[in-house]
Amino acid sequence: MEKNIHQYKQVPGGVIAPKGFKAAGVHCGIKRKRLDLAVIYSTTTAIGAGVFTVNKIKAAPLLVTMDNLSHQKARAIVVNAGNANSCTGEQGFKDAKEMVSLTASMLEIPENEVIVSSTGVIGVKMPMAKVRAGVKDAISQLSDTQESGDNAKQAIMTTDTFPKELAITLELSGTPVTLGAIAKGSGMIHPNMATMLGFITTDVAIEHAALQLAIKEANSQSFNMITVDGDTSTNDMAVIIANGLAGNEMLKLGSDDFKKFQAALNYLTVELAKLIATDGEGATKLLEVQVKNAKTLEDARKAALSVAKSSLVKTAIFGEDANWGRILCAVGYSGAEFSPDKVEISIGNSIESELMAIDGTGVEFSEEKAKKILENKLVTIYIDLKDGVANATAWGCDLSYDYVKINGSYRT
Amino acid sequence: MEKNIHQYKQVPGGVIAPKGFKAAGVHCGIKRKRLDLAVIYSTTTAIGAGVFTVNKIKAAPLLVTMDNLSHQKARAIVVNAGNANSCTGEQGFKDAKEMVSLTASMLEIPENEVIVSSTGVIGVKMPMAKVRAGVKDAISQLSDTQESGDNAKQAIMTTDTFPKELAITLELSGTPVTLGAIAKGSGMIHPNMATMLGFITTDVAIEHAALQLAIKEANSQSFNMITVDGDTSTNDMAVIIANGLAGNEMLKLGSDDFKKFQAALNYLTVELAKLIATDGEGATKLLEVQVKNAKTLEDARKAALSVAKSSLVKTAIFGEDANWGRILCAVGYSGAEFSPDKVEISIGNSIESELMAIDGTGVEFSEEKAKKILENKLVTIYIDLKDGVANATAWGCDLSYDYVKINGSYRT
Repeated sequence: MEKNIHQYKQVPGGVIAPKGFKAAGVHCGIKRKRLDLAVIYSTTTAIGAGVFTVNKIKAAPLLVTMDNLSHQKARAIVVNAGNANSCTGEQGFKDAKEMVSLTASMLEIPENEVIVSSTGVIGVKMPMAKVRAGVKDAISQLSDTQESGDNAKQAIMTTDTFPKELAITLELSGTPVTLGAIAKGSGMIHPNMATMLGFITTDVAIEHAALQLAIKEANSQSFNMITVDGDTSTNDMAVIIANGLAGNEMLKLGSDDFKKFQAALNYLTVELAKLIATDGEGATKLLEVQVKNAKTLEDARKAALSVAKSSLVKTAIFGEDANWGRILCAVGYSGAEFSPDKVEISIGNSIESELMAIDGTGVEFSEEKAKKILENKLVTIYIDLKDGVANATAWGCDLSYDYVKINGSYRT
Repeated sequence: MEKNIHQYKQVPGGVIAPKGFKAAGVHCGIKRKRLDLAVIYSTTTAIGAGVFTVNKIKAAPLLVTMDNLSHQKARAIVVNAGNANSCTGEQGFKDAKEMVSLTASMLEIPENEVIVSSTGVIGVKMPMAKVRAGVKDAISQLSDTQESGDNAKQAIMTTDTFPKELAITLELSGTPVTLGAIAKGSGMIHPNMATMLGFITTDVAIEHAALQLAIKEANSQSFNMITVDGDTSTNDMAVIIANGLAGNEMLKLGSDDFKKFQAALNYLTVELAKLIATDGEGATKLLEVQVKNAKTLEDARKAALSVAKSSLVKTAIFGEDANWGRILCAVGYSGAEFSPDKVEISIGNSIESELMAIDGTGVEFSEEKAKKILENKLVTIYIDLKDGVANATAWGCDLSYDYVKINGSYRT
């Protein structure tokens, strides 16, 4: 029943909204018809930081990017959809490195300032002739027009049904600063991190250590708190590039302005995460799970994610069935520490809610009102553990016939 | 490509196959039409042991049974389907205890020799008037006929589409010994332990410590290695009652005959576990995942379960799509230690198989042959980690439209 209150001004453009960024998205033929390759570029020197999948199987482009980002500078992102370049052996590495070197040489920047990323089917070799042509094409089209931003956000989609983008501005000690982002992901979405790609640009001036901490912290409460199917992919990354063109005083860890920037980045990534959950494969509803008064933050997160992930909860939400027992059951196997006889459960939204269990036991409730709440496109489950003061929110979606349909024949 | 070789003779009767056991199954009205209450009874004194859900939310009958079994003796099992008596507060405890006391007084045995179990919807109070009548009715019908065994196995079903039963005999130092079992469970199936109920009877003479170890060991490679939807329920239990009527020399931990008994119990529980996975809600195929050459047994089990549980693998199997990348990906996030560049993956069955990945990288394979393999009702995924000597097998099922249908409106 809490509301997101925020003071950020939304601006158009996505990744090209901050000063000094250009983008492009092209069709190079990895996919049959749709745009499938994007480049994002900072016209001046910039730093980069990122977080990556914890899957032991890491795709080639991800390993190349992790290595490049260890040098802290980053000016360009080259990303393709339709092929994940994952489980592709030595050739996969060569291909990812070639995407980097081609991008670097065309932009006349050092190779280790290029971030490379791929998403799509696993285990198929990259069609490099098409990719090479695509990189050249995209770089020749780099611009800071709205259309370029639109093309870039579309070129990173796989089974996404809509592109995901947000840009916001805020003032840091009187200086306007902008953050822009595009993201993709609708299946294989689960912490940490799912086939989730998030590319964030900002013109803020910030020290590298602060930027690295900021993206890690933002990720832990956004992209790491969404789940569509529990499958964590081999290619996930959320990266941020900051070029300092806003002209603010350099952000350092712990300063007030850094805290404001962190809050804005948290807001930006949470909104993108919710868009991803909303677009969960086959989803008809966005499911929000708010856990409060847990013993520790970890307990709150475990409980929230476990409920958002439960196939039985997800199918009940799809069927608009107020089956609160499944909710409590999912808290029970989450691994979170809590007292079963204290738990209170409601379902609702920002306008109304219906209490279903007190002290871990069901109470009389209006089936009619519950049904009405479940008919909405956003359903929130409120779980009060009454065992501490830590809160966490997770997002997911319902499990529908279409999830099965989409994933029954993805590869073929 | 390994086969289950076993030397056990299958016999009819299920739980009434061992000497000195009777059973009954009746309709008392918890469910609309089908049988919904069963009693299993040893005509002589017997010992019992069991394993229980690790969900922090434990249903009332489960807590009562855990307490009773701490006294080691057990002569009767009373179980109902249609209502789980879970999250039902103080009243739930009273109801579970009343089921015990009523059963004990009618059978003229101590209350702590009764095992009580419930399965069905969570959070709804038990209709005790119906349950009382059902317990009386069932106890009046106790017998050792095939029909009684058949009724008992049907009375524990919820969304199961077929009853699950097996009985086998073996010789221990020349003395014939029999084990019989019934089981239920098709949704909310996941270690540890899922809405899985397993009731095992045996006429073996065995020390209590040996029986407790045997059921725990058998469970770890059978019921704990199946997954249907990743939801671990509040009511799961596998219990065994042994009455010693076979007249064998008392089994002690570590003896050769104990090892033979353990192997037989493992076989019995694995076969039941496979029946449960086969009957996974909406399942069209049984999925077997064999992991070999892992560093440790725990790594092998984690990897096998992660693949069997992956929604993306399960939908691909349903769609008969040879998407081995999803298999490798699920091993990657399983938490198992392994070397990604050593993994070999095949799909197949006892007759044929097709190699799909070597050294963690895809190889050319026949789509036609893969498709043919995937069309079978039993699909086995072979994963060789080439990193040690530990092996494990997990069982699951595909994820179909019908899973969504069954669970979208279970409660209503």
